[in-house]
Amino acid sequence: MADTNPPPNEHAPPEGPSKSELKKRAKAAEKEKKAAEKAAKQAELAEKQAEAEVDFAKESYGPLPLHQSQSRPRKPRAQIASLSSRDGETVLFRARVHASRAQGNKMVFLNLRQRTDSVQALVMVSPEKISKQMVKWAASLADESIVLVEGVVKKTPEPIKSASVEDVEVLVIQIHLISGVERRLPFTVDDANRPDADIDAEGAQFNRVLLDTRLNNRVIDLRTQTNQAIFRLQSAIGDLFRDYLSSNGFIEIHSPKLQGAATESGASVFKVNYFKGHAFLAQSPQLAKQMAIAADFERVYEIGPVFRAEDSNTHRHLTEFMGLDLEMAIEEHYHEVVELLDGLFISIFRGLKEKYKKEIDVVNKQFPADEFKWREGDEGTLKLTFRQALDLLVEDGVPREELDDINTENEKRLGRIVKAKYDTDYFIIDKFPIELRPFYTMPDPEDPTLTNSYDFFMRGEEILSGAQRIHDQKVLAEKMIAKGVDPESMTGYMDAFRLGCPPHGGGGIGLERVLMLFLKLNNIRRASLFPRDPKRLEP
Amino acid sequence: MADTNPPPNEHAPPEGPSKSELKKRAKAAEKEKKAAEKAAKQAELAEKQAEAEVDFAKESYGPLPLHQSQSRPRKPRAQIASLSSRDGETVLFRARVHASRAQGNKMVFLNLRQRTDSVQALVMVSPEKISKQMVKWAASLADESIVLVEGVVKKTPEPIKSASVEDVEVLVIQIHLISGVERRLPFTVDDANRPDADIDAEGAQFNRVLLDTRLNNRVIDLRTQTNQAIFRLQSAIGDLFRDYLSSNGFIEIHSPKLQGAATESGASVFKVNYFKGHAFLAQSPQLAKQMAIAADFERVYEIGPVFRAEDSNTHRHLTEFMGLDLEMAIEEHYHEVVELLDGLFISIFRGLKEKYKKEIDVVNKQFPADEFKWREGDEGTLKLTFRQALDLLVEDGVPREELDDINTENEKRLGRIVKAKYDTDYFIIDKFPIELRPFYTMPDPEDPTLTNSYDFFMRGEEILSGAQRIHDQKVLAEKMIAKGVDPESMTGYMDAFRLGCPPHGGGGIGLERVLMLFLKLNNIRRASLFPRDPKRLEP
Repeated sequence: MADTNPPPNEHAPPEGPSKSELKKRAKAAEKEKKAAEKAAKQAELAEKQAEAEVDFAKESYGPLPLHQSQSRPRKPRAQIASLSSRDGETVLFRARVHASRAQGNKMVFLNLRQRTDSVQALVMVSPEKISKQMVKWAASLADESIVLVEGVVKKTPEPIKSASVEDVEVLVIQIHLISGVERRLPFTVDDANRPDADIDAEGAQFNRVLLDTRLNNRVIDLRTQTNQAIFRLQSAIGDLFRDYLSSNGFIEIHSPKLQGAATESGASVFKVNYFKGHAFLAQSPQLAKQMAIAADFERVYEIGPVFRAEDSNTHRHLTEFMGLDLEMAIEEHYHEVVELLDGLFISIFRGLKEKYKKEIDVVNKQFPADEFKWREGDEGTLKLTFRQALDLLVEDGVPREELDDINTENEKRLGRIVKAKYDTDYFIIDKFPIELRPFYTMPDPEDPTLTNSYDFFMRGEEILSGAQRIHDQKVLAEKMIAKGVDPESMTGYMDAFRLGCPPHGGGGIGLERVLMLFLKLNNIRRASLFPRDPKRLEP
Repeated sequence: MADTNPPPNEHAPPEGPSKSELKKRAKAAEKEKKAAEKAAKQAELAEKQAEAEVDFAKESYGPLPLHQSQSRPRKPRAQIASLSSRDGETVLFRARVHASRAQGNKMVFLNLRQRTDSVQALVMVSPEKISKQMVKWAASLADESIVLVEGVVKKTPEPIKSASVEDVEVLVIQIHLISGVERRLPFTVDDANRPDADIDAEGAQFNRVLLDTRLNNRVIDLRTQTNQAIFRLQSAIGDLFRDYLSSNGFIEIHSPKLQGAATESGASVFKVNYFKGHAFLAQSPQLAKQMAIAADFERVYEIGPVFRAEDSNTHRHLTEFMGLDLEMAIEEHYHEVVELLDGLFISIFRGLKEKYKKEIDVVNKQFPADEFKWREGDEGTLKLTFRQALDLLVEDGVPREELDDINTENEKRLGRIVKAKYDTDYFIIDKFPIELRPFYTMPDPEDPTLTNSYDFFMRGEEILSGAQRIHDQKVLAEKMIAKGVDPESMTGYMDAFRLGCPPHGGGGIGLERVLMLFLKLNNIRRASLFPRDPKRLEP
């Protein structure tokens, strides 16, 4: 390659430098000095880092320093789930000590865990490699400690039943403590992962971990295989919800949870101190998403917290839950919305079944349940009118005079009747009576005692409530007054309709309910990471 | 085809029916009668529906009934954007009357709008088809009314400058009012869509619509092309954020916004009446996402509202905004987190530029801005230490004694210096001094006055703040006490670390800030659907 650097200036005039030139040189020298200092400091740092690496290599056990960021050797870390295929390789990985068992003072078996996977590791005295002290130290590690392990993967003659990776174990070369455990475990992860039936069968051998104890110690409860799977499924439902709606022309909106007035139904709204005045927490994005339709967004969805100040401690109510909400303009008929929502649910059910079988199976071990059933193809989803649903209950023996509304008990009964008669865990009820629905619900054009509204059910429990909404401000104002709401208290909302709004409808889904009912978890608190109810604000 | 029906039973025994048989028959007859009645009713309904369809076909103009759900002819509806390619076809579509202009009493021009698209439509007297009354009625339609139009698409000899679809117009056959306008428009959508520069150039001809007026009438303000594009871009940023993190092993979590104690920093937290006690609105999902890491979820993100009770009315603060938060376990060094976050931002910038050029161009018309610039390839994103950032400011003339922190003004100045020197609108500052960061921030292992923490900047404004967190409960408790926080007030959080927690780090992004700065909207309220600040809780 040709030298492209300019040649040194050999022909410079022999005069002395000027004053300004001297100043310039001094500045340059200073800059150079600073750069040299910086380089020296960097070299020192690099040396320190190298030392830290050497230290780690030299010492084969013991705690790591707090920061763990002094050096960055960029050594690849292994996943326990992948070890089966790595016989003979030396691997490095971070894991929890799930359990340990010493055999004499020369050997200790560790069960090491990453999320839903585990493997057996062996620390064994060996001349010049593993000292007695190291084995003793490894045996002293508390369950749930986090360690960094280097070891050789080795096929085992017999499957190791206690680990999820059964065909290999790890012969430890180095083991370091990343994070220790500094309080007594309230329960073991194994006990928290056990199905109730096993505990009943084995009598006093295992401890039943009560829901309240779990929730008080939620961080360790969440480490069970079951919970790792439940919250992966919760995340999956959100993805499936968004994917379906995006591909159907919806955009995501974010509406404020802080409201100036206690809207929708004042009774169950939380009041907030807002500077020198007050605000209220939104019960749902209902008003905002309707306003987005009046603002021409056509099809919108929102995933966000909704707040309900109802003092009820049932298996299916939370004071804060995740609402999956959507709203869309209607072209001809509100059944366009019902059909879209039905397509959405079927896409969620199918997506879970096809892509998350492993997680569903893991949850089923602790919470046994019949597989969730829905109808597809020509037959399609079962749709009943509210009247037909009442008839089914009356046929089944419920006195008609008890059926102004369908209460929780009768909802479940209806679920059982439908399951027996139609073999489905999922169905729709259409055409609710007007007195059961909020003021903004569009009346049925054929029968003013009914509405263009619907609920969706899973295993006999409501998971979605929705309707066509009134888009005419005069009719809306009438209905508000009839239900005791002052239109003047909701000017922003009313204005949206005064400025022209297309016919529209939508619905709100409770994320935790869908998750609870799909998996049959029996209590909604199990479907919420850190649940909130009238008695629980912690952790 | 062979007849597979069974032959009629001609050989039945001639005996009379039993009593129970009679009862059965009576029941069956009743059932039959009911079914017949039902069928008759359905037939009647179908007839009514058919009539409604006929009505619509018969009457070529006038308002549609409220429900618009009596019939469902399933006629396809057109999108204005597609009309260019449909010359000669008869189309049906719903649109807003953007503007109208009568020519004599025989013709009216309508400018019809769907979101960011518009087309010209012509209602013209024609024997036996379009009456004078119909033209008069069409001319009386208020701007922003919603109509259902049937018409024939026809190529125009000259481009129609006032519409986005310039090469065709629609000759109206039928036109019906879906939703009228019942108050005076506070401003026109055209005025709201105009760049300030145009208004200044044209003097008094156009009305400048002030931000407060817009926000007070947000539903109509949101109908501008600019706002339709802004909120499509907001939705896109969320999608790009999730896609990148999903493909990097993250799951989505939802943490409660209602907290039992005023955590993080008590001063700026909203207090909520919670049954007989109190709760507080979460300032961020910081504590919950760290607890999710202690619960072994490894990599988590959350998109949710965050609440700040700071009484400041700046261009970049809201009391409620959308936090894009993430947290991840660290293997070797916290720069793993910095690199992931950097990859995330570049993926967002690239995604917007590649897939949403149309929307960005629409916004630029009203808010002219230099294209957002970032560095890629070998060069990579500019990373400065906090000290280097200060040096740049000092070199630029800021007295060093003013630089304990970088205030908003100096942040912007730094943005300008960096842009001039490095030609980028996006950069990272690493290693903030310990006194500027919250108690949970991990100190720098080399220099205890610094931390393993970083901010990300766009056009000289902070859009992300993050750090490695302290995962050791003893060190954490010390730092809390040093910052005046009582560890006992945060038992659930402290417990997470007592039970073993891996090293971890993360960050929180303000969605509205990213949107505002990418598009240079100059005020964060323009990037929020229904913004909230100390003085605004409506609409």
